Amino acid sequence: MKKAAVVGAAGFAGIEAARLLLGHPEFELTCVTSGADAGKPLAALYPALLGQTDLVFDAHDVDVIAAKAEVAFLAVPHTAALAMAPALVAAGVLVVDLSADFRLADAAVYEKWYGVPHTAPELLATTVYALPELARAEIAGCTQVVSCPGCYPTASALAAVPALEAGMLAAGGHVVVSAVSGVSGAGRSLSPKTHFCSANESAGAYGIPHRHTPEIKQTFERAAGEEVALTFVPHLIPMQRGLVATAYVPLAAGVAFEAVRAAYEERYANEPFVTLLPAGMMPQTGHVVGSNRAHVGVAYDEATHTLIASCAIDNLVKGAAGQAVQAANIACGFAETAGLTEVGPVV
Amino acid sequence: MKKAAVVGAAGFAGIEAARLLLGHPEFELTCVTSGADAGKPLAALYPALLGQTDLVFDAHDVDVIAAKAEVAFLAVPHTAALAMAPALVAAGVLVVDLSADFRLADAAVYEKWYGVPHTAPELLATTVYALPELARAEIAGCTQVVSCPGCYPTASALAAVPALEAGMLAAGGHVVVSAVSGVSGAGRSLSPKTHFCSANESAGAYGIPHRHTPEIKQTFERAAGEEVALTFVPHLIPMQRGLVATAYVPLAAGVAFEAVRAAYEERYANEPFVTLLPAGMMPQTGHVVGSNRAHVGVAYDEATHTLIASCAIDNLVKGAAGQAVQAANIACGFAETAGLTEVGPVV
Amino acid sequence: MKKAAVVGAAGFAGIEAARLLLGHPEFELTCVTSGADAGKPLAALYPALLGQTDLVFDAHDVDVIAAKAEVAFLAVPHTAALAMAPALVAAGVLVVDLSADFRLADAAVYEKWYGVPHTAPELLATTVYALPELARAEIAGCTQVVSCPGCYPTASALAAVPALEAGMLAAGGHVVVSAVSGVSGAGRSLSPKTHFCSANESAGAYGIPHRHTPEIKQTFERAAGEEVALTFVPHLIPMQRGLVATAYVPLAAGVAFEAVRAAYEERYANEPFVTLLPAGMMPQTGHVVGSNRAHVGVAYDEATHTLIASCAIDNLVKGAAGQAVQAANIACGFAETAGLTEVGPVV
Amino acid sequence: MKKAAVVGAAGFAGIEAARLLLGHPEFELTCVTSGADAGKPLAALYPALLGQTDLVFDAHDVDVIAAKAEVAFLAVPHTAALAMAPALVAAGVLVVDLSADFRLADAAVYEKWYGVPHTAPELLATTVYALPELARAEIAGCTQVVSCPGCYPTASALAAVPALEAGMLAAGGHVVVSAVSGVSGAGRSLSPKTHFCSANESAGAYGIPHRHTPEIKQTFERAAGEEVALTFVPHLIPMQRGLVATAYVPLAAGVAFEAVRAAYEERYANEPFVTLLPAGMMPQTGHVVGSNRAHVGVAYDEATHTLIASCAIDNLVKGAAGQAVQAANIACGFAETAGLTEVGPVV
Repeated sequence: MKKAAVVGAAGFAGIEAARLLLGHPEFELTCVTSGADAGKPLAALYPALLGQTDLVFDAHDVDVIAAKAEVAFLAVPHTAALAMAPALVAAGVLVVDLSADFRLADAAVYEKWYGVPHTAPELLATTVYALPELARAEIAGCTQVVSCPGCYPTASALAAVPALEAGMLAAGGHVVVSAVSGVSGAGRSLSPKTHFCSANESAGAYGIPHRHTPEIKQTFERAAGEEVALTFVPHLIPMQRGLVATAYVPLAAGVAFEAVRAAYEERYANEPFVTLLPAGMMPQTGHVVGSNRAHVGVAYDEATHTLIASCAIDNLVKGAAGQAVQAANIACGFAETAGLTEVGPVV
Repeated sequence: MKKAAVVGAAGFAGIEAARLLLGHPEFELTCVTSGADAGKPLAALYPALLGQTDLVFDAHDVDVIAAKAEVAFLAVPHTAALAMAPALVAAGVLVVDLSADFRLADAAVYEKWYGVPHTAPELLATTVYALPELARAEIAGCTQVVSCPGCYPTASALAAVPALEAGMLAAGGHVVVSAVSGVSGAGRSLSPKTHFCSANESAGAYGIPHRHTPEIKQTFERAAGEEVALTFVPHLIPMQRGLVATAYVPLAAGVAFEAVRAAYEERYANEPFVTLLPAGMMPQTGHVVGSNRAHVGVAYDEATHTLIASCAIDNLVKGAAGQAVQAANIACGFAETAGLTEVGPVV
Repeated sequence: MKKAAVVGAAGFAGIEAARLLLGHPEFELTCVTSGADAGKPLAALYPALLGQTDLVFDAHDVDVIAAKAEVAFLAVPHTAALAMAPALVAAGVLVVDLSADFRLADAAVYEKWYGVPHTAPELLATTVYALPELARAEIAGCTQVVSCPGCYPTASALAAVPALEAGMLAAGGHVVVSAVSGVSGAGRSLSPKTHFCSANESAGAYGIPHRHTPEIKQTFERAAGEEVALTFVPHLIPMQRGLVATAYVPLAAGVAFEAVRAAYEERYANEPFVTLLPAGMMPQTGHVVGSNRAHVGVAYDEATHTLIASCAIDNLVKGAAGQAVQAANIACGFAETAGLTEVGPVV
Repeated sequence: MKKAAVVGAAGFAGIEAARLLLGHPEFELTCVTSGADAGKPLAALYPALLGQTDLVFDAHDVDVIAAKAEVAFLAVPHTAALAMAPALVAAGVLVVDLSADFRLADAAVYEKWYGVPHTAPELLATTVYALPELARAEIAGCTQVVSCPGCYPTASALAAVPALEAGMLAAGGHVVVSAVSGVSGAGRSLSPKTHFCSANESAGAYGIPHRHTPEIKQTFERAAGEEVALTFVPHLIPMQRGLVATAYVPLAAGVAFEAVRAAYEERYANEPFVTLLPAGMMPQTGHVVGSNRAHVGVAYDEATHTLIASCAIDNLVKGAAGQAVQAANIACGFAETAGLTEVGPVV
């Protein structure tokens, strides 16, 4: 058993990581930390864990974490991960970062979108952007920082990448990604917009321009091997978990939709966590919530020769904690699906 | 008081029309009809109306309707409206049609998308496509068929039309409309997808290609005065009412976003039911549910010079029954806002 | 038009009162106040009101309120109403209090349950406990403090009072009231329990013992004319608005259920806002939300000779702001239903 | 691995049983049956299972079931289980029945409440009413019919039984159980009440008198060792899963609440799936959904010397499929928690 810590386990992504690790056959959860709730039992904040664990939150102390764990899942806000990662790496701890701090390869782009300088640019060179479906081999060799994609970038990538990799995007084509997410994506902090009476029975676009935009663009451009024009808009909708990214991809002239579908079928044939839905079916979050799976569906708009590619995930699992465990499994040489076999409720 | 009938009042759009007409200062609801529930009191199906009305459903009989009412709101499925409208018009009844049967000016397009021939093409010539914000004058003179826009076309039009009318769409520009709707949009019929346990806590794209596509395209092209490439995809999300259409409109070179915003401000300055939101704010369905208002917000994606225009409405009010009453008010010479002043719950 | 103020209009009950008064034919809303949001437009907090009103929050200043209004609806937390009411009364303003401060006739009981002394006991003598269905005549003559019942006490009273008034409770009988409420009942303040991700898809009992207990007991005992043993437990459930109180009333020996039903029919025959449902039907909040109506249903448990009486209301309307307007209508000599005729959405 | 069938796997309880058995270390799911969907893959009805299983629904054929499985979980409507159980038992198949057909020990009571004669009364003698917390030893020896409790009876029993077993009920005391349940409890059949637009944002009592009443009474009387007067009323509330039963238990004179709490602590100290919550905390369904656990909380109403005991469960897991697996584990000699260790989402 490899010892694992979840740093920032009081938050939604952190507690989901803790939950997954508590049931993991290869990792032993030995440490959970929280800034505000240090000293409290995990179950005091999350009564679902009463009787499941006696873990108590430690404070965010790098020395304590390094003493207790070989792998640290960082589920803290951006800049907080940046502040802790170098010392953890120096202490020989594998950092699996769920924050945005190491996702953008270019420190200047990070500074532009996050408004603060990147204080550990030297780590960026060895960091792997850990979307397993795109970077399995690189993750396997990673010993420093495994940077987990954001929730929207994960679904956007799984929706559009097969077409982009296959060179099917129209030259100069402008990709629109319009997405919806459940409220857990907004995190555990209290704010008027996450009050039940604001979020319930209401939907709308938010956060324009959204900080996931450069990350999605980076992934699209890596896949396409060229610059990709991208517009991304997320919408908040009234549900707990779940995220759908629908990508509108103008196709190159002469690319038949049958070829597009074939490219998706081949691309995802052996992916343990990605299911390409049968023709005519588009993904629903209800079918993936509670699991690490992604459902992808493709449709064709003949009038504009546009691919409509949609991907549904659980934002807290495949969009955060589950994907982090998946990547950690690969980095640690465990079975990729270890601890992630839960199907999730089907009703 | 003008006598009004709601044909198909057992359905969601029909009952909402009935509810609005029961509180209307100029219309008197004298007749409600239903195929399956003829003979039952309205309140037997909708207990919220217990003590509010003693109306009993009549069967769908054109003679009865014509005898009881001067205006007939048709809230029946497509083809059923087509079957009744000619006789009602012949009997001198003003038809306010909420179905899709008279929305498409070209009978061939109707046949292509609905799979049946249009059996009353002669009426299409005098029919007004009754989005009041676009066709106030034409509605005022209409005495035969007032055809009310669909829910998605209404929100899509209010989102994009000011830019299109102002000639701001890039030449050959491809407009994407990505929309979300609450479950009442799927109607009262029982189906697995509207079972609470399917619809609740789940979201996803559906109905591709959707039949509202040619209607949206028709409106966009009328506004732009030229052909407009359009991709439209709706998503079902877990809420009762409410619809957001977000339009991604590539802007012509040289069009500044300030000019776009100014065009929207001018366009909606005097519209009683359309509110352009302050800069930086995007519309939420929770702010319009229960009222006939539309909230419109505009944002700008600088990297791709694209307008992001979003509109939120209550799909059953401004997207159906409320808009029908608004159009009927205009056609009958009443105050446009008569019977539609309800603000809707703000919490 | 009588000038009205809503004190504490930023909260959920306050904004609902404001919304109702904005559409009221006899009251003119001239003043809204807020502690935290003074200086902001009402619509800045509640965008549903954009374009509907230009009112700006005043601070909680009794002189300003008295200068601007003849009637003040107090929708502030308990103790805050107590602090303002005497000066408002002294200034000749009719106080319609939605807080708990004047509901309990006995200042000692208030102190026991609220943990603070009652600082205006002299006003209690002239205060009317304003459940219109029980105290219509007293409200009509009230010129000082009209104290509006709490949400749970309103539904509990409407459920059980006809049986209690008719002397049908078993001697020494123990009444249990088990209730459920939507989340708006918890108010606008941010707390972990009202975070969407805590409240959504979860239900449970809370707040035992609940402060509405002595108020319900007071009403039951007034109706029964004797001491009534009462256990009251509320449950929070995942919906915006709506409240159901189900009362379990052991019946006196020899009282036939037919007689009970007849007592309810007679009691509510002429009540404008209370509907006794047909036999076999129990009330659903969905049928009353958005309106000032209460639906009451009665059933019989033969094995234990117990009446099951259930009442559904909208907690913010009949349970708060609507009832306050109803009482104010009576106190001011207006039609009791003025401004309260809205049916509410039926879908 | 013991071969298991789920009979009626297209329904909500059945598919949940299938899901649990697919991940079970000791059972192998070899057969799923459906009346209406025979021939279809399981994943065609429940796309969450795409890629998780290739099972195809068989028809309800006892010979096929007996040929394929050693244990049959019956998740069919009442009377259907009655029709199949005798032949399955005769074929040597262990029947784990989730229906109501074998829950009531007295065939006459069954006939009274279900309106049909009990056609297999001879099996009742050897049937075990399989609430593991009450009948662990009897289940262990059962080889014919393991009858699983209903969802409401499970939560009601776990809430009240420790007090009843301890003789703490007041002599002649009348127990009220008021419960709430999510919509999955109403099953997969389409009906107006399970349409999203009826069930969403609405709550109310239903089904009075409810068929679970005699079952709860039977359990209470077995625990108390004497007759118990019971009134039971369920309420439908807008959530997917989850059930709370709150029992109001009048306490015998002289029984201190501390003694009651001690009785609960002792009773549940070693139960793997029941957690007694800390003093002051009442159970929330959100903390148990997705798991087989039950949370129990107790509070005291001093004024009436009444115990308020509340239990929250996931109606489809501890209230149906999970409990069936738990009982089958015991009957088959497996670890009681095998296949049931999933914690469920904590956010």
